[in-house]
Amino acid sequence: MFRNFKVVPHIIFGRGSFNQLDDILAEKRRGVGSFMVFLVDDVFSESGLKTKMPVKKQDLLIWVNVDDEPKTVYVDELTDRVRAYMKSGSNNLPAGIIGIGGGSTMDLAKAVSLMLTNPGSSADYQGWDLIKNPAVYHVGIPTLSGTGAEVSRTTVLSGPEKKLGINSDYTVFDQIVLDPELISGAPADQRFYTGMDCYIHCVESLNGTYLNTFSKAYGEKAIELCREVFLGNGPDSDDKLMIASYFGGMSIAYSQVGVCHALSYGLSFVLGLHHGIGNCIAFDYLEEYYPEGVHEFRRMMKKHGINFPRNLAKGIENHRLEKMVDVALVLEPLWENALGTGWKEIMTREKIKELYQRM
Amino acid sequence: MFRNFKVVPHIIFGRGSFNQLDDILAEKRRGVGSFMVFLVDDVFSESGLKTKMPVKKQDLLIWVNVDDEPKTVYVDELTDRVRAYMKSGSNNLPAGIIGIGGGSTMDLAKAVSLMLTNPGSSADYQGWDLIKNPAVYHVGIPTLSGTGAEVSRTTVLSGPEKKLGINSDYTVFDQIVLDPELISGAPADQRFYTGMDCYIHCVESLNGTYLNTFSKAYGEKAIELCREVFLGNGPDSDDKLMIASYFGGMSIAYSQVGVCHALSYGLSFVLGLHHGIGNCIAFDYLEEYYPEGVHEFRRMMKKHGINFPRNLAKGIENHRLEKMVDVALVLEPLWENALGTGWKEIMTREKIKELYQRM
Repeated sequence: MFRNFKVVPHIIFGRGSFNQLDDILAEKRRGVGSFMVFLVDDVFSESGLKTKMPVKKQDLLIWVNVDDEPKTVYVDELTDRVRAYMKSGSNNLPAGIIGIGGGSTMDLAKAVSLMLTNPGSSADYQGWDLIKNPAVYHVGIPTLSGTGAEVSRTTVLSGPEKKLGINSDYTVFDQIVLDPELISGAPADQRFYTGMDCYIHCVESLNGTYLNTFSKAYGEKAIELCREVFLGNGPDSDDKLMIASYFGGMSIAYSQVGVCHALSYGLSFVLGLHHGIGNCIAFDYLEEYYPEGVHEFRRMMKKHGINFPRNLAKGIENHRLEKMVDVALVLEPLWENALGTGWKEIMTREKIKELYQRM
Repeated sequence: MFRNFKVVPHIIFGRGSFNQLDDILAEKRRGVGSFMVFLVDDVFSESGLKTKMPVKKQDLLIWVNVDDEPKTVYVDELTDRVRAYMKSGSNNLPAGIIGIGGGSTMDLAKAVSLMLTNPGSSADYQGWDLIKNPAVYHVGIPTLSGTGAEVSRTTVLSGPEKKLGINSDYTVFDQIVLDPELISGAPADQRFYTGMDCYIHCVESLNGTYLNTFSKAYGEKAIELCREVFLGNGPDSDDKLMIASYFGGMSIAYSQVGVCHALSYGLSFVLGLHHGIGNCIAFDYLEEYYPEGVHEFRRMMKKHGINFPRNLAKGIENHRLEKMVDVALVLEPLWENALGTGWKEIMTREKIKELYQRM
């Protein structure tokens, strides 16, 4: 069985394309009482971007905080805010949810668009294909590139029990706006960590057992663009990083991430690390699995003067270490992609603990 | 203004994925009177593929003939056949149109799906964004790779006056099934000519003035795959050719074809040549515009023992030559992409005639 891959059906790419958002949304606005919800990373609350956003007086603008990675309780809270706003007005669902920010913000926008049409808590839907009803129309506008959240069929959330995405065809954005100008202002370290998310997941997918020609073509081009961005000095590196992220996300169609992402999920859940930096911390200790990738990654780190914290999991209390292992082991497809069907014999709890204790 | 690019929203890729077509269509069939229309290249009427097609007893199977390139009168005739079938049954529109074949067959399927919901003749819609109503759900299943018809927003038709596509977001397939096994039986020369459509349009777009990073990434990877297919000897060359075609089609988002395609349209319209061979004939005389591409193309021809007819337009009657020039000159975006905004000074009627007379 091959996956019938759901692709974002409308893509606009180009420097300044953000200025066309108003026109794009105009087609979706429907008469009286129709409103849009903008979920925007609060780092932009004092920025020039704020003045360019086509927020009309009937719209709801919510500044979201992503100092912590998205949690299911936060998604539920944001959904309740939108519902309260509906009650104060037309009682209609919003005409669209527009997420402007990095992977965390885009994931919040995806999750809220799903939870407006599906009952209960977002924690009920962490898993694969548990969503029953189509989402509200939703638009993703990245201001950081590398996660692939702009094209993926998941929204990764930390719930009460686990860090796991809401994986569904309905999660996929209806529209993305890829404007390289929006990522040009990102802090250098954040740009690096997020960009490495793309680089690392391509290393994992290209070295995985699930790969086919579709995913290989996307993954190879994405990694080539990452090299140009992080080892070269091109003037159009923002454009390239944005396309690398898009291609990296597309490559996941018939592939999977691997050892690094699985371990990174455990680090994030227990230590509260952001996904990008969590990946980098884990990847640096995975020479055994991805020798060439890890060496090239270190050259990229050096060139960009990146130093990340060390010894974070060393000497950690045993129950927290066990929880990290639990979180990592939930991600069976990742382990199977990386190590084949016999992965359970290779990647024992002891082996995972040993890896974590080096980090 | 950047194009808000409409992408085929559902893609399935893999050897044997054609076997999942029945499941994919099952979701679209709607109770009593609901039927599918299969438009299938008549070369398959005696083939093993016929037995694998999920045609139900209520469905309409039409074997289409593409010895000639698709004409608007043929589209209108096929649309009338579907309408007559509707009248004999439920009077409902079909639940879907499934095109199985090369670029011509896929273009027929696209055009019929549009004409079932838009009044008049298909000739009325040759041009850009003239279609007013969404098409019937339509699925493209290529059995030849290279045209990019599986992803494009056009269906190229020869009308009473001109060869020109129906360009519209509604033209884009709702689903494509990319099964490399389906292209493995194509005759070697046809496979070559169709594959060269991809190679040539990538040369044209990568050397054009419209290009941006999105289209460049797709075009570069497509051309790399074409090289592996036509200059290498890989075991998975069907898989690669199928992805090259898909990537080549995607690269057109923010690029255009150029001199070769413009001239090829004239050759097809007046001499009735198929698009693939028309491109090859024209390209071989375009060293002046695409020196590296033409040299590599000749190496590919040599490796595959391809000899195409020569002197087809030599000594042609003047009124036919003039018509060829007219058809080529309609395609203004192609010329502008190839030669810049001042193209009219470079590419005069005399210059085009001179090129045609060599072919």
